[in-house]
Amino acid sequence: MRAVDLIRKKRDSGEHSREEIDFLVSGYTRGEIPDYQMAAWLMAVWIRGMSRSELAALTEVMLYSGKVLNFSDLPGQKVDKHSTGGVGDKTSLILAPVVAAGGLIVPMISGRGLGHTGGTLDKLESIPGFNVNLSLDQFRHVLRECGMGLIGQTAEVAPADKKIYALRDATSTVENIGLICASIMSKKLAEGIDALVLDVKTGSGAFMKHEDDAVRLAEVMVETGKRMGKRVVALITSMDQPLGRAAGHSNEVIESIDVLNGHGPADLHDLSIELSAWMFYLGERTKSVDEGRRLAETLIATGQAKEKFKQGIRLQGGDDRVVDEPQRLPKARFHLDVPSENAGYVTGTNCEQFGIALAMLGGGREKKEDAIDPGVGLEFRKRIGDRVERGESLATIHYNADTKLVDAKTLIASGYVVGPEPPRDVPPLIRRLVGA
Amino acid sequence: MRAVDLIRKKRDSGEHSREEIDFLVSGYTRGEIPDYQMAAWLMAVWIRGMSRSELAALTEVMLYSGKVLNFSDLPGQKVDKHSTGGVGDKTSLILAPVVAAGGLIVPMISGRGLGHTGGTLDKLESIPGFNVNLSLDQFRHVLRECGMGLIGQTAEVAPADKKIYALRDATSTVENIGLICASIMSKKLAEGIDALVLDVKTGSGAFMKHEDDAVRLAEVMVETGKRMGKRVVALITSMDQPLGRAAGHSNEVIESIDVLNGHGPADLHDLSIELSAWMFYLGERTKSVDEGRRLAETLIATGQAKEKFKQGIRLQGGDDRVVDEPQRLPKARFHLDVPSENAGYVTGTNCEQFGIALAMLGGGREKKEDAIDPGVGLEFRKRIGDRVERGESLATIHYNADTKLVDAKTLIASGYVVGPEPPRDVPPLIRRLVGA
Repeated sequence: MRAVDLIRKKRDSGEHSREEIDFLVSGYTRGEIPDYQMAAWLMAVWIRGMSRSELAALTEVMLYSGKVLNFSDLPGQKVDKHSTGGVGDKTSLILAPVVAAGGLIVPMISGRGLGHTGGTLDKLESIPGFNVNLSLDQFRHVLRECGMGLIGQTAEVAPADKKIYALRDATSTVENIGLICASIMSKKLAEGIDALVLDVKTGSGAFMKHEDDAVRLAEVMVETGKRMGKRVVALITSMDQPLGRAAGHSNEVIESIDVLNGHGPADLHDLSIELSAWMFYLGERTKSVDEGRRLAETLIATGQAKEKFKQGIRLQGGDDRVVDEPQRLPKARFHLDVPSENAGYVTGTNCEQFGIALAMLGGGREKKEDAIDPGVGLEFRKRIGDRVERGESLATIHYNADTKLVDAKTLIASGYVVGPEPPRDVPPLIRRLVGA
Repeated sequence: MRAVDLIRKKRDSGEHSREEIDFLVSGYTRGEIPDYQMAAWLMAVWIRGMSRSELAALTEVMLYSGKVLNFSDLPGQKVDKHSTGGVGDKTSLILAPVVAAGGLIVPMISGRGLGHTGGTLDKLESIPGFNVNLSLDQFRHVLRECGMGLIGQTAEVAPADKKIYALRDATSTVENIGLICASIMSKKLAEGIDALVLDVKTGSGAFMKHEDDAVRLAEVMVETGKRMGKRVVALITSMDQPLGRAAGHSNEVIESIDVLNGHGPADLHDLSIELSAWMFYLGERTKSVDEGRRLAETLIATGQAKEKFKQGIRLQGGDDRVVDEPQRLPKARFHLDVPSENAGYVTGTNCEQFGIALAMLGGGREKKEDAIDPGVGLEFRKRIGDRVERGESLATIHYNADTKLVDAKTLIASGYVVGPEPPRDVPPLIRRLVGA
């Protein structure tokens, strides 16, 4: 078998056998197939697509490219959630303690932010001392102790995905449903979980701008997970505007703590409860999703979820005092309001622009190597449907350096669409359910 | 400008500006854009195609990626021929001396054989002492002295093509009309020529199996050359069977000398005269193609072309005694006939198989690094339309090592299609003329 022949086959819209995909992906992971051949193949795959059986083969080969974790010695079902990312999406920080407080095991391997989307690891690292780089032994220990663990992708788990993802990022072969599915599912299935809830975002701040694309991705991921014997559902949720009021790092941690305290913005609270409820149900902790909702609410109301978050922080080396004293988190020195140029109603947002503005201010990455300023953040004061007066603040920028402040401000201002009439429809937070 | 954005643009069927193509190709040639980004872009180009203006830009950027030769100090028009390659295609060895003997300058930069097609440089190197690796100063000297020079691609001429071609070869992005056109035309136009005759092969032994594809390639190349102010025509010629009777290296040199002596196979003689005639006409040496034909015949009949060949060999360090004493060329030690299994008529050939068989015997390359055995060769005894008896020899293999002899013999035998009836049509040697 030669890589050049397999590239030609995909170029000419052929269908690969499992052996062919294994040859390419395993060979590439071992360094026997060079970047340029993989890049040509990925572009051919991007354009020509993959069949369901090719996708299953790709996911499995990537899954078994490294260690597949096994937590069967830990009591309780192992469940996780994966979101396709957006602006202000911080639900992992809420539902990991909620679900762990409910008795399930949540072994979460998360990513870092890139482009306009934030990353769970970066947010956690705004907590002084919090270590996301645990060894697999340490990860197991933390999970045994408290039921939740949040770490970054290690070299041992799904190394094929790590290598292929970096190449896709540099070759414009990211946005392809098959490749996205294989990347996400190979990593998640390598966590040794029993069940998985997918939060597939759609709208102006999501990767999948159109709901149809989000649904297709969700269907493919659910099918792939089920084929591998896992319980999987996907919620298609709105990223037409930021989730919650905060985007950044320490301010997202604070907002998550607000929700764990029974406060916080309604949309963030509702989505966190909904995702937790599905995790409880798929993890067989509750007999219904509704019972899962009630359990999640109770765990918040009784303070158990918040205590679980503190325990999780401690076990990963972090300063758990931040939960009760959020002023211990990094904070930007300056702030600036973004006033509305017109009076009227917020009818929509170009949500992605908020994420780009945040990155420009140092609160996100343009390149993988970039450092992040955890204190920088945006505070959204208006949501779709809100009345706004001329000169009234749409959002507040919390910043440390004013290098790109004017550009960021312009981007945020133009990110709000203000019209004379209230919008006819405010998009629902949860659009659809796939696989239930 | 970022490579990743340009890759995305082509992936999404966008059209590049000249500046964008320059950014990609010049950046790649300088080593600033990595192989993997170029590979992804090439695959996107392969699948999505290029517009005429993109192709013109690509050709020019590749042309000006290195030195563009200038022979304006040498008296007479500079003309060249380029063939897309096939089995037994040795016309360069004939028409270079014919056309130079007629007073034009033929600055030929040729390639090596790869896969099933032979290369002019390899054939010339079967002449003891012949040096194809001249510096550009030496090349100029040889051209001044005798009007013909045959060298290999240097690092100074069209370096972008050299680098891109190697990458295309490894990423299955070779067979694309736009990329082929840019590769050929950038190299040929860098030779500093006034006129160019293209020999675009079609048929079972050609790169372009279908005549339509050959015509499309020819049209694009002619248009590109004319846009750059050159006189260009293309002949679409048959590669339904080998050209002449010999395929190999020293045996092709011998067959070329036969033609220069006024003998040799009719098809090889006729095509050489035709190509020479067009070179004379486009090089403004004759007022018509017909006058060009007569001139070519005269230069052969008087021995002037043969003497020119000797002079050219001498000037490039070769032993010119081979022209009168071909036994001085390397010769294989053994020979084996390939008998026909059936009686009947040759109705067609799978011509590519002959080239592959030759390479298997050491008379061609599977990889660029492979060495070539110049004495190995095939002698075709039957042509399309010929009567053949059961057990009669179809071809003779001249070989030195019998490692793959049986496989090669099988390939050659099955390369001949023998049927009970004579073929209705014997494909004409010259199918069409493009650009005249």
